Amino acid sequence: MAGRGRGRPGEFELIERYFRPLATTPGAFGLSDDAAVFRPPPGEDLLLKTDLIAAGVHFFPEDPPASIARKALRVNLSDIASKGGIAVGYLLSLALPNDWTESWIKKFADGLRVDQETYGVTLFGGDTSRASGGLTISVAAIGRVPKDRMVRRSGARSGDLIYVSGTIGDAALALAIRTGRVKATAGKGTRALLDRYLHPQPRLALAPVLRAHASAAMDVSDGLVGDFGHIARSSGIAGDIEAAAVPLSPAARAIVSKHPETLATVLTGGDDYEILATIPPDRASAFEAAASAAAVPVTLIGSVHKGSGVRALGENGEPLDLAHASYDHFA
Amino acid sequence: MAGRGRGRPGEFELIERYFRPLATTPGAFGLSDDAAVFRPPPGEDLLLKTDLIAAGVHFFPEDPPASIARKALRVNLSDIASKGGIAVGYLLSLALPNDWTESWIKKFADGLRVDQETYGVTLFGGDTSRASGGLTISVAAIGRVPKDRMVRRSGARSGDLIYVSGTIGDAALALAIRTGRVKATAGKGTRALLDRYLHPQPRLALAPVLRAHASAAMDVSDGLVGDFGHIARSSGIAGDIEAAAVPLSPAARAIVSKHPETLATVLTGGDDYEILATIPPDRASAFEAAASAAAVPVTLIGSVHKGSGVRALGENGEPLDLAHASYDHFA
Repeated sequence: MAGRGRGRPGEFELIERYFRPLATTPGAFGLSDDAAVFRPPPGEDLLLKTDLIAAGVHFFPEDPPASIARKALRVNLSDIASKGGIAVGYLLSLALPNDWTESWIKKFADGLRVDQETYGVTLFGGDTSRASGGLTISVAAIGRVPKDRMVRRSGARSGDLIYVSGTIGDAALALAIRTGRVKATAGKGTRALLDRYLHPQPRLALAPVLRAHASAAMDVSDGLVGDFGHIARSSGIAGDIEAAAVPLSPAARAIVSKHPETLATVLTGGDDYEILATIPPDRASAFEAAASAAAVPVTLIGSVHKGSGVRALGENGEPLDLAHASYDHFA
Repeated sequence: MAGRGRGRPGEFELIERYFRPLATTPGAFGLSDDAAVFRPPPGEDLLLKTDLIAAGVHFFPEDPPASIARKALRVNLSDIASKGGIAVGYLLSLALPNDWTESWIKKFADGLRVDQETYGVTLFGGDTSRASGGLTISVAAIGRVPKDRMVRRSGARSGDLIYVSGTIGDAALALAIRTGRVKATAGKGTRALLDRYLHPQPRLALAPVLRAHASAAMDVSDGLVGDFGHIARSSGIAGDIEAAAVPLSPAARAIVSKHPETLATVLTGGDDYEILATIPPDRASAFEAAASAAAVPVTLIGSVHKGSGVRALGENGEPLDLAHASYDHFA
């Protein structure tokens, strides 16, 4: 219904030039067929997951195309990691706004290529179309896991310890800076936060450690407190998170010191893509040692109790009053 | 970034009320976890496919929500069918415009529920977010097929016969009527065409027949002539399609008789979701008998030759001059 821009390639040329080279597995048939074939290794289960990201919702339209591509892929790989899975590949749906350019697509595909090498995944197939508005990218990730060993949200038990990987709140603070809600001086610290917003780090290296030691796990995408609420509900338990124990990057710590009200943003803002896991206490040292061997920093932030709900506790041991526990895409 | 409408449910309530009931397989965990588990039957390959549909591109925003849902699912199931596959389930990504309503979502989910029963598939997981513009729906379909038995595009050989299922051109004519390019009187025939645009019929019943007899197959989504071009290129052969043999519905036949220039729309318009297959001549009677037993009408429309390219031949045996062989989403 809209005209093709002068000199822009058609749908088939786009696929041929930029996406076919990403389909490195024989089962993708170089994207020249209607479906891909994947033969799961015997004795393993498949993991299936889809997440979409949309311009103006999950990223800014002016963000670098390679970063948008990598975010779309990584938020899915993060889920596979949190379930103890090994990432295998992905399907890509790309709805392009009318003003797309070939150079944008090239950079987008380059971002995917770099990440495919980093994370050992391949493109199984995709679909490219015009969008009815801004850019929307949907990825469906395929992972595998030894039979019956997917790490569920529902396995947390009273007495378990709550751990989180990496640092929390960086991406949410970056978004607050970009939207002007928080003032921050330009500099190395702010750049580090912005990088965390653009480039989540799926913790695939932690997946075997989770399979070996975690009673429950998920990735933190909608906010630490609210996401632990999912584990609590699924497991039929309650959780206490000590706010002071939640690991912050130096840049996030500096902002929270200066603007204490941003602690709520850190605890509930989301976009962290870190792993939140519960570990039985007799497994804690082994878990910490294995995480350290996998070069993934993990921090003890709380504990699991009988009951329901999740509380973020302040330094005085009193629950903090958080307006929202997590990010809601429609709120 | 936008406000939630008064009285509208949040993301989690939406999932709980309308999508969780669609996740009928134990491996989807009632959509309460971060990924679904699927254990492929031993000795089978998985088929993976994704297709997206966007408002204003693949459907009209005012189309019935149940029809939009079913189209999103069915265009994917059509691919699984064309590869000789058995449909298993799907992942759903839904980017909703700002003016979504709960009643729209309810009807959308109802459409999916009806089709899940019809086609024996289940929802494995999904993601729902605001769109940056109009509605965009991406489905990733998972199918299975006996090991090494996916029907490829690349197996056509010189001498094979070209068959197509059902009737061709109905949906493209419906779109031409809806956009005003073709004038048609309101009536039963026009209603039948419009129904074909909204409700493609994935030919899953033909899948085992294709596995048994077809040398190559695909579904017709971008136009009969152009799509046969994909088989021709993949197989390294040429094809002749006899325009007069292409099966038309009574309503399409009436329009083409009145407006002969619409024959090009029929042959190249797309959105048919019928099966295009090549059959070795010594298999032709067995193929026709098996298709008939599966209650899927199939029609012989041409033949495969040495060379390259695809020609649509008129009644005089001369190639027709078609401006475009197929629909390009960016053209």
